[in-house]
Amino acid sequence: MSQRTNAVEWLTHARSLFEPAMREAVGRLDPFLGRVTSYHLGWCEPDGTPTSGPAGKALRPGLALLVAEAVGADVRRAGRGVVDAAIPGAVAVELVHNFSLVHDDIIDRDRERRHRPTVWSVWDDTTAILAGDAMLSLAHEVLADAGPHADAASLALARATREVIRGQARDVEFERRDDVTLAECLAMEADKTGALLAVSSSIGAILAGAPKRVVDGCHTFGAELGLAFQIVDDLLGIWGSPQVTGKPVFADLAAAKKTLLVVWSIEYGGDAGADLAAWFATHGSRTVIEPGELKRAADLIEKAGGREWATAAADSHVAGALGALADLGLDEAAHHTLVDLAHFVTERKL
Amino acid sequence: MSQRTNAVEWLTHARSLFEPAMREAVGRLDPFLGRVTSYHLGWCEPDGTPTSGPAGKALRPGLALLVAEAVGADVRRAGRGVVDAAIPGAVAVELVHNFSLVHDDIIDRDRERRHRPTVWSVWDDTTAILAGDAMLSLAHEVLADAGPHADAASLALARATREVIRGQARDVEFERRDDVTLAECLAMEADKTGALLAVSSSIGAILAGAPKRVVDGCHTFGAELGLAFQIVDDLLGIWGSPQVTGKPVFADLAAAKKTLLVVWSIEYGGDAGADLAAWFATHGSRTVIEPGELKRAADLIEKAGGREWATAAADSHVAGALGALADLGLDEAAHHTLVDLAHFVTERKL
Repeated sequence: MSQRTNAVEWLTHARSLFEPAMREAVGRLDPFLGRVTSYHLGWCEPDGTPTSGPAGKALRPGLALLVAEAVGADVRRAGRGVVDAAIPGAVAVELVHNFSLVHDDIIDRDRERRHRPTVWSVWDDTTAILAGDAMLSLAHEVLADAGPHADAASLALARATREVIRGQARDVEFERRDDVTLAECLAMEADKTGALLAVSSSIGAILAGAPKRVVDGCHTFGAELGLAFQIVDDLLGIWGSPQVTGKPVFADLAAAKKTLLVVWSIEYGGDAGADLAAWFATHGSRTVIEPGELKRAADLIEKAGGREWATAAADSHVAGALGALADLGLDEAAHHTLVDLAHFVTERKL
Repeated sequence: MSQRTNAVEWLTHARSLFEPAMREAVGRLDPFLGRVTSYHLGWCEPDGTPTSGPAGKALRPGLALLVAEAVGADVRRAGRGVVDAAIPGAVAVELVHNFSLVHDDIIDRDRERRHRPTVWSVWDDTTAILAGDAMLSLAHEVLADAGPHADAASLALARATREVIRGQARDVEFERRDDVTLAECLAMEADKTGALLAVSSSIGAILAGAPKRVVDGCHTFGAELGLAFQIVDDLLGIWGSPQVTGKPVFADLAAAKKTLLVVWSIEYGGDAGADLAAWFATHGSRTVIEPGELKRAADLIEKAGGREWATAAADSHVAGALGALADLGLDEAAHHTLVDLAHFVTERKL
């Protein structure tokens, strides 16, 4: 990278690099599942009419390409740029991410995603199952054709996918239990969110043929960033401004969601934590909760120290992410953009 | 292969080779999804208690290993046998086959498979979605570690999986239509059944590093065998003896299933075909059909020439399968077993 680029500029640039390949890949699907997938990705309406709305931020492909750029100084080869070589990796992680969203929406019975009806609610469960399956398989089809390091990249992606699926299975299990510990919850989030950000951050290095030490450092960067990202999401789910999050205030409490900071507060929050546990025991996800009660739960979390803990934990995981990039010999300008990206996705717009 | 082995002996031998690797792979899943998968594979009861019942025939892994053995004469390398090298391929095709069964059972709302309750009916849709996802991803995890030809094998498997998913999507669509042509139906079955048998037959050759001509020949063998297998299944679904098929007589007619021979009969069967079309228009899959009516439909198919067509078509696809193996320079004893296997799986035990 010849000059410093900030996170938003990079994500825009990355989208222009990976989206043609993503469209080519989705174009391989049969017309019906291709249209369903294009709808889910925000490219068209259910009937296939192209949309012109703003595209998503495509964080995972952006990370994959940025890491390739960052390790490129060491491994750049004549003829083909390392960023080009990472494009199949960028497409593959975005496909796996979206596979998991489409299947999770069936499982969680979520009717809305990115302000649009979910695939199962536009069509049916069958369509959503098959579209998700098609995206997961397509990810490996794209990756298998990715040159000399395709097998290592496919292995890393499949391991991460196994973790993502395990995380979702545990999340579903946790909803039926009221004795989930913070350690269990952290392990679940590391699987569900961390694993895919970890492979998104390492796949560009793998495809560039970077040494194991560099691949591992990039992997840790993504895993830590994933945890920070999740904790910030949990903070925003309670105290986030509706104008910024697009959700009502106290949204996670209204859904009686036991996020990391709730679990921390119950386990380590003393009397306020005990009151919070009692609050959750009487307010299920299927009941409508009064605004005053939502405010009371938020105050209990704050009193228990949960908000403070989450803020410090997010900062600590961001620091862990940035620390993992040190001494990897990364391209200086790309390293700068990685740091900016880490701050950008963990900003607390409360 | 030093001496001639018949199909049943080979399938038993192949199971002893691939099952330890299959169990190791499934063992990588988290305990819950590992147990669900083991239940589906017939290894245990829903609570995890091991079963001692007879194992399935594992046709696809058997094909993968037999083809590796068959091409081995040309490509055998010092140190590691070609059959050993094909084991990840055998595991991967069996995992993809079972992923598709578990998801199809949700889609088709089938409550029974191999005389046992299906995964979604023992647990729920969520569990069946996640277990299927885990098997599909695990297939690529196993394959990515399969040595120098892993990427080519992964690509072939992913392409076949795309075809399987497309076939299932079209099958669901066809159930809502009454104007499906024989050509559409054949293309759907080639995707749904043929594609996975084709890759099961070629993956052993790919992993052995066989030349493209040999890989393509083995692929065609499996694709043709898949169509023959499906047509025989359709014949058995109407005229199969309940003692052999484990299903009641006229089972496919009782379910008002428009199989290939039904579609052929309607399209090419003249007056009897027109009567058959009228029969299907008045007998839906949700109505209970009188035994006399089932017999009448079977007679109409016979009168339309559908039974005769299907018998000839199955024979012709078996011949196409065997023809594709000619001139590939296969090991003679393994070639003999492949021929026996082709006859074994397309036997019409009416």
